[in-house]
Amino acid sequence: MANQIIAIDLGGTSAKCAFVRCDGHLLHQWTVPTDNREKGRFIVPALIDSIKAKIEEYKVDKHDILGIGMGTPGTVNVAKKTVKGAYNLNWIEDQEIGQAFEQAFNLPFYLDNDANVAALGEQWQGAGQQMKDIVMITLGTGVGGGIVIDNQLVHGISGAAGEFGHITVDPHSDQMCTCGKKGCLEAFASATGIVNMAEYFKDRLTSPSPLKTKMEAGETIDSKMIFDAAKNGDALGLKIIDQCAFYLALGCSHLINILNPGKIVIGGGVSQAGDFLLDRVREKADAYLFPPLREKAEIVLAQLGNEAGILGAAQIVNLAEGGYE
Amino acid sequence: MANQIIAIDLGGTSAKCAFVRCDGHLLHQWTVPTDNREKGRFIVPALIDSIKAKIEEYKVDKHDILGIGMGTPGTVNVAKKTVKGAYNLNWIEDQEIGQAFEQAFNLPFYLDNDANVAALGEQWQGAGQQMKDIVMITLGTGVGGGIVIDNQLVHGISGAAGEFGHITVDPHSDQMCTCGKKGCLEAFASATGIVNMAEYFKDRLTSPSPLKTKMEAGETIDSKMIFDAAKNGDALGLKIIDQCAFYLALGCSHLINILNPGKIVIGGGVSQAGDFLLDRVREKADAYLFPPLREKAEIVLAQLGNEAGILGAAQIVNLAEGGYE
Repeated sequence: MANQIIAIDLGGTSAKCAFVRCDGHLLHQWTVPTDNREKGRFIVPALIDSIKAKIEEYKVDKHDILGIGMGTPGTVNVAKKTVKGAYNLNWIEDQEIGQAFEQAFNLPFYLDNDANVAALGEQWQGAGQQMKDIVMITLGTGVGGGIVIDNQLVHGISGAAGEFGHITVDPHSDQMCTCGKKGCLEAFASATGIVNMAEYFKDRLTSPSPLKTKMEAGETIDSKMIFDAAKNGDALGLKIIDQCAFYLALGCSHLINILNPGKIVIGGGVSQAGDFLLDRVREKADAYLFPPLREKAEIVLAQLGNEAGILGAAQIVNLAEGGYE
Repeated sequence: MANQIIAIDLGGTSAKCAFVRCDGHLLHQWTVPTDNREKGRFIVPALIDSIKAKIEEYKVDKHDILGIGMGTPGTVNVAKKTVKGAYNLNWIEDQEIGQAFEQAFNLPFYLDNDANVAALGEQWQGAGQQMKDIVMITLGTGVGGGIVIDNQLVHGISGAAGEFGHITVDPHSDQMCTCGKKGCLEAFASATGIVNMAEYFKDRLTSPSPLKTKMEAGETIDSKMIFDAAKNGDALGLKIIDQCAFYLALGCSHLINILNPGKIVIGGGVSQAGDFLLDRVREKADAYLFPPLREKAEIVLAQLGNEAGILGAAQIVNLAEGGYE
């Protein structure tokens, strides 16, 4: 029986590709640069050519391949295997990804959103520890996520389930989100939101702060600098991280009170702040959790880093084709 | 092939029982009083005797029965078919419901929480219109609910998914909930919460209000009186309904932003206020919804009333036994 999967994690700069054994063991990995010129029309052909070459190079028998799984930015129609609105790829209108791969390889092909496949990867091989129900929150430039229930991804009726960045964590806030509304989790817990909060609080804070001094001298700051300042006891840095942790805790409490998952897995660039952030989130979340759920829901760091997407892309093939139980 | 199901919707005063055709058509309905004395030990035997008598009375061939489905208050272990913490039944510790029914009838038996089966009933035969993903919120003495994703109930890892009453909709509120924490949706949108808000606002409102006058004269009020006052333009009544609708809208927005369901179905006694309440909820929810989801998520009234539980109890048998596709 087929025992390996071709997995693709497509991003704006490059695609990570891999042969993955059905049990999750990574066999060979490589990357393909993403060329998004001319409405991204070179992206899929480049992936197909590269995979064909690797099948040759590693002398893989096609009968050993269970299928191809791919995670992509944008809004995915899982049934139709199409994607649109992947702006960093210049894929604005529907792209017939499934058709292209199925024609090229005559193998089963499955497509899902990149935040979703990362959640599935963590559930299968990472921080989710194969618990049947987990939620992953990805804190990057924006805030995204994915929901796994009974080992399956939740998509919702229009493929938008897991848009945790746009939970309104503060209906009274004036903090604008890129989506056009106010008080979104993304406005407080994304890398962008954290920097915006620094702008907001620097003029309102009277305590001395080296971070504030840097900003007033015109230095460009990023979220890592804010976390580093906070770790050094900087008043402005601590104020920002406190706000970020508060809203993240409230958002986590909503997810736990609604879904009763086994784990909330926190990933993405901002999560590199590690337990310095998560300890604050855990501490604050308790007050907002339904008491019987307080001990049931662990908030943990993601474990797989960049490999979550590749492994999740492999697992969507396993789940659909029954490759690994 | 078996074409009917025995469905039970157990409540604190009585159990509704029915023979239901696998397509959802109700054949015969009756009720059995709930005798919760002596730790509720008479409840299950009374149900079993009554069902046996009805099988005789209607001359039902046991081969025509696909199985027995039951909704119950309390915390259900779906796999073990046990329930505990059903305080209105005096079922504090684990009750072996499945064992008792399976021994008595030698038929497949399935058990789930009453709020869950009501959600499934509405999804199958009511306001959910068989959309694969819906959420139901029940506004009664408390606030409960159920989640249906891909036509299946979501239970979470400890059976507590759907505890919407304990979403913290206002982390800065002092309004206590029965669960021990503050700012729960239940404190603003349950019948109890609505009456408590009347107590809270009556001393803070300076406008004239017949409702306030009644309360000051010592009259006992209930949530229906508050809605009726609001419908007549009473300032206190309107203030309370406005708060209730605001928090309910925020809670609905969380559910929609997280799960992207086809419908949010609002049921329970408080929902009898109808569109007077729901129009306010819909209007307020928009501001908190991720813009691409604004047109996708309808907030609607439940349609099945008391029959939701019976039909949902039947549908859990269908889903498990493949009785109706």
